Amino acid sequence: MNSRVTDRLRSKELQDRVVSAHEAASWIEDGMTLGLSGFTRAGDAKAVPMALVDRAKDEQFKVNVYTGASLGFDIDKLMAEAGIINKRLPFQADPAMRKKINQGEMLFTDHHLSHVAEMVRANSLCPIDFAIVEAVAITEDGAIIPSASVGNSVTFLQQAKNVIIELNLAQPSALEGVHDIYEPAEQGKRLPIPLTSASDRIGTPGIHIDTDKIKGIVLTDDLDSPSTIVPPDEDTATMAAHLIEFLREEVRAGRLTNELAPIQSGIGSVANAVLHGFLDSEFENLEVYSEVLQDAMFDLLDSGKLRFASGCSFTLSEEKLKAVLPKLDEYRDRMVLRPQEISNHPEIIRRLGLIAINTALEVDIYGNVNSTHVCGTKMMNGIGGSGDFARNSRLAIFVTKSIAKNGDISSIVPFVSHVDHTEHDVDVIVTEQGYADLRGLAPVERARVMIENCVHPLYKEQIKAYFEEALARGGQTPHVLEKAFSWHTNFAENGTMLMPINSSVSNN
Amino acid sequence: MNSRVTDRLRSKELQDRVVSAHEAASWIEDGMTLGLSGFTRAGDAKAVPMALVDRAKDEQFKVNVYTGASLGFDIDKLMAEAGIINKRLPFQADPAMRKKINQGEMLFTDHHLSHVAEMVRANSLCPIDFAIVEAVAITEDGAIIPSASVGNSVTFLQQAKNVIIELNLAQPSALEGVHDIYEPAEQGKRLPIPLTSASDRIGTPGIHIDTDKIKGIVLTDDLDSPSTIVPPDEDTATMAAHLIEFLREEVRAGRLTNELAPIQSGIGSVANAVLHGFLDSEFENLEVYSEVLQDAMFDLLDSGKLRFASGCSFTLSEEKLKAVLPKLDEYRDRMVLRPQEISNHPEIIRRLGLIAINTALEVDIYGNVNSTHVCGTKMMNGIGGSGDFARNSRLAIFVTKSIAKNGDISSIVPFVSHVDHTEHDVDVIVTEQGYADLRGLAPVERARVMIENCVHPLYKEQIKAYFEEALARGGQTPHVLEKAFSWHTNFAENGTMLMPINSSVSNN
Repeated sequence: MNSRVTDRLRSKELQDRVVSAHEAASWIEDGMTLGLSGFTRAGDAKAVPMALVDRAKDEQFKVNVYTGASLGFDIDKLMAEAGIINKRLPFQADPAMRKKINQGEMLFTDHHLSHVAEMVRANSLCPIDFAIVEAVAITEDGAIIPSASVGNSVTFLQQAKNVIIELNLAQPSALEGVHDIYEPAEQGKRLPIPLTSASDRIGTPGIHIDTDKIKGIVLTDDLDSPSTIVPPDEDTATMAAHLIEFLREEVRAGRLTNELAPIQSGIGSVANAVLHGFLDSEFENLEVYSEVLQDAMFDLLDSGKLRFASGCSFTLSEEKLKAVLPKLDEYRDRMVLRPQEISNHPEIIRRLGLIAINTALEVDIYGNVNSTHVCGTKMMNGIGGSGDFARNSRLAIFVTKSIAKNGDISSIVPFVSHVDHTEHDVDVIVTEQGYADLRGLAPVERARVMIENCVHPLYKEQIKAYFEEALARGGQTPHVLEKAFSWHTNFAENGTMLMPINSSVSNN
Repeated sequence: MNSRVTDRLRSKELQDRVVSAHEAASWIEDGMTLGLSGFTRAGDAKAVPMALVDRAKDEQFKVNVYTGASLGFDIDKLMAEAGIINKRLPFQADPAMRKKINQGEMLFTDHHLSHVAEMVRANSLCPIDFAIVEAVAITEDGAIIPSASVGNSVTFLQQAKNVIIELNLAQPSALEGVHDIYEPAEQGKRLPIPLTSASDRIGTPGIHIDTDKIKGIVLTDDLDSPSTIVPPDEDTATMAAHLIEFLREEVRAGRLTNELAPIQSGIGSVANAVLHGFLDSEFENLEVYSEVLQDAMFDLLDSGKLRFASGCSFTLSEEKLKAVLPKLDEYRDRMVLRPQEISNHPEIIRRLGLIAINTALEVDIYGNVNSTHVCGTKMMNGIGGSGDFARNSRLAIFVTKSIAKNGDISSIVPFVSHVDHTEHDVDVIVTEQGYADLRGLAPVERARVMIENCVHPLYKEQIKAYFEEALARGGQTPHVLEKAFSWHTNFAENGTMLMPINSSVSNN
C-alpha cells in the first residue's frame, strides 16, 4: 500500500479492508436499501453504484436509493436505465430518471431535505442496509472525512447496518478540516443546536462510527461532475437587479443594513445570476448560510463582498473547480460544509433570520408556488431545500422568468397546478418584469400587485380577465374554479397558454 | 381605590392612570393599528373594543386589528358589523366577520400564528399604535401579568407606541405565576431558546415594558366567553379510536413508547374528542405542548394520564370553567401559558418532536390539506397554528370526518381547492373510516392508501374512477386537470359532490 493511499487511509486497523468496487457491489442484495453520499453532483459515491449498474446486465434486482440530493456522474441516469431502483428519495435532477419516474416505472418520494435524517433516525423509512459514502480520508482513529458534500452521510453512516467507504484519492486532501459534523440527539432528548452565526463551528471535522460496520473500502480516483450552470443572460441579470432594488428598499426602511442577513440561495442558473448581482452592489460583509456553494459564491468570496459561506456541498463549473480546488487552503477559514440537516434546519434558519432565494417553476396570483410539477403531474426534480428555507426564513423570495417556451407558458397562472409553498410562506416574487412584495397583504391585494408587477405583457390582459371574473364571485381568495386550470389544459391541447382574445372570459 | 383594585394594581406609580373604557377608546384615531390580547376566546381585551364599537354609532373610522387568534365576547362580530375594521389578522372564527371578509368588505390576512410576533418585531406589518391587553395584575415594579392567554401580547406591548391595560378583576388572581414570558431577541442576535422539555420555565411571570407607554388602565369585571365545543359523537369517537390504534402501532414498531411524545392538538370538537380518547387508553405520563388548553386536557390532568400541559391560552366550556377556575392553584404546577411565538415555535416543535393533531377541512388523495377555504374561495377561520405544528413536528396528523352536509360533500377530493399543508408536511390522515399512514410513500402509493382507508363508501367508486383515469395519463402525481375541481363545481351547481353513476369518467 503506497503512501498516496496510507496518507488518506490512516487507520491501520482498516487498511486490510480495501476491496474492489465490484466485490463491494456484490454484497448488495435484491430488496435492500442504500444510503449514498452525494449532494447536487458533489461528493457522490461513484464506483460502487457503477459496479451495481454493471451487475444488472446479468441479474435482476431492485434496491431503494436514498441520497443527500441529486447525484453527478450519470449515476441516477444509469441506475434508472438499468431498472434497478424500486424507490428513490429525496431529490434527483436527471432527465432519464425523471422520465422513468413520470412513466411510473420507479417510485420517487419528494421530501424536504432537512427531514430525511430525522425520518431515518426515527425509523419511519426503510432501514438502511448499506451506507456507501465517499471520503477523502479515514483518520488514525477511524473518523471518516467526507469529500465535497456532507449531505445525509452522517445519519446514513450512523444508522446503516453496513458501511462501504469510497476513498477518493483525486479529491483534494485539503478538504479535511472544511467539514463541521454535528448530529442532533433523538427528538425529546435533544439540546438546542448551539449555532448562532453562519461561521460557527459546533462539531467535529470527521464522522465517528462503529468501525466494525465498515465492510469494505474502495479506492477511487475520479473528480466530481462539474455543474451545468448557464451564465447569466439579460433576463436573469434584470431579475438580479430587481431583487437588489427590493433589498435596497429594505435597507431604506430600516429593516436591514448594508450587511443584509445571511443569504440562502437555491441552485441553478437564475439563482447564480442573482448572486452575481451582489458583486456590483453596495452590500458588503455578507454571509451565506445555504445548501450548495456554487460559482458565484466563490466570486463573492474573491471580491471580498462575502465574509463567510456555510453550505452542505460545493458544486462548481469545470472552470471554477480548476480555479478553486488548488487553492482550497485559502478558502478554508471562510467556508464550512455541514450535514444537510443542519444547513437546512428550521431552528437555525429562524434564529439567523435568513434571506432565502429560491427558484419557482410556477406561481399563482395569490403567491402559491409550484417548485416541482410540470402542469401539475410530471415531476421535474423535487422540492429540495426550498421548503426548509422558505418556511422558516426572514424573507422567502422566489424568482422565476415570467414566461417559458418562448411565451407559450406563463409562469404566473390563476391557480398553480401543484403547491409546494403556500401563500403563508411566500413573501416576495421576482420576475424580469419586476418584484411583488406580498408581505402583510390580503389575497386580493396580493393578486393586484402580482399582476401589476410580475406578469409578462403577453398574459396581462388574460390574467386580469380571470381575476375580474373571480372577483365578481367574491370570497377571501376569489377563483373561477372551473377555469382555474384552463391555462394548463389549453397548453396541453393547443401548445400554448395564450387564449384567443376575449375567449378567456367566456365559458370553456 | 379599594383593596380589590390595589391588590391587583400594585404599582403605585400607575394607580392614577385608571380611566373609563370610553375615555381610552377616544384616544384611538382613524387609520390606527391596534394589537389586542386574546387567543381563542381567552384573555381578550373586552371593554375598550366594545367602547370603540360604541363610538362607531356617531363616527366613521377604520382601524387595523391584530390579535393572538380569535376573540370571544362577540367582539369580532360587533367590530365587523360596525364596519370599523380595515384589516384583521392573523385568525378569526366569527360567522358575521367571516361573511364580511368573504363579501370583500374588510381585509383579512391569514398568517401562521408563530409568525406574527416576528413580523411585528421586524416592522414588516403596520406599526402598532395601541396595544390593548387584558391583565390580572400589574406588579409593584410595573410588570403586566396576562390573564387566560398570552398570545402576542408580549410583542404587542413591547412594540406598540402606546399601551392600554384592561385590568380584569373577575379573572382569578391565581393566574399570576402560571405564565412563562420569554421573547427571543431580534433575528441574527438571538440565542437558542433554552426550552428542552414541555414543563421547562425559561422566562418571567410577567411582561416588563417601559411603563411610560401605559396611557390608561381600564378596570373590567367580565369572565371570558366559554368555548362552544360540542361533546364527542359516534364519528369523533371512532376517529379517536383509529388515531389511538395508529399510535399503538407506533409503539409496537418501537418508534414511540407508552409515554408517546408531547402532544399538540388543534382546537374544536373533533380534536377534543380525540384527546378524550386518551382517557381510556394504555398511554400514560403524557405531556401536552400545544396552543389551547381545552376541556379534555383538564380531564386528562385530573385522571393522572397527563403529567404536564403547556399552552398559550386556556379556553374551556362554561361547565369546565366553573370547575377549573376555583381550583387553579391545584393545576398551577402542572401547567404553563407561554407566548404563541414560543408555544408554536419551529425550533421547539422540532426539538421536542411533537405529535401534532389538527383538523382538516378537506384533503386530497395525495395528502394535501385545505384548512381554511370552503370550495377554494370562502375563508372559514384561518390556518391558525396548524402549519406551525405540521411543518416541524415528528408526526403531522390531520383528522376530518370523511363526509359533510349529510354526504353532499366528500372531505376527500381529487385535488384540494386550496392548499394550506402540502403533501411534504402531512404524515397521517384519520377519518371515521380509518387512517392512512402516508410516511415514505410516493404519490400513487399515497392515493391508494387514502382511497382504501379514508374515503366514505358513498364516494369510493367515484374517487377510484378519477384516480384510474388520472393514472392512465401518467406522471409522478397523476391528475385529470380539467376534472380536478369537478367535484366542487358540481357541488356549486347541483348542491352535491356526488355525480350520477358513470358520469364521473366522461368528459364534463
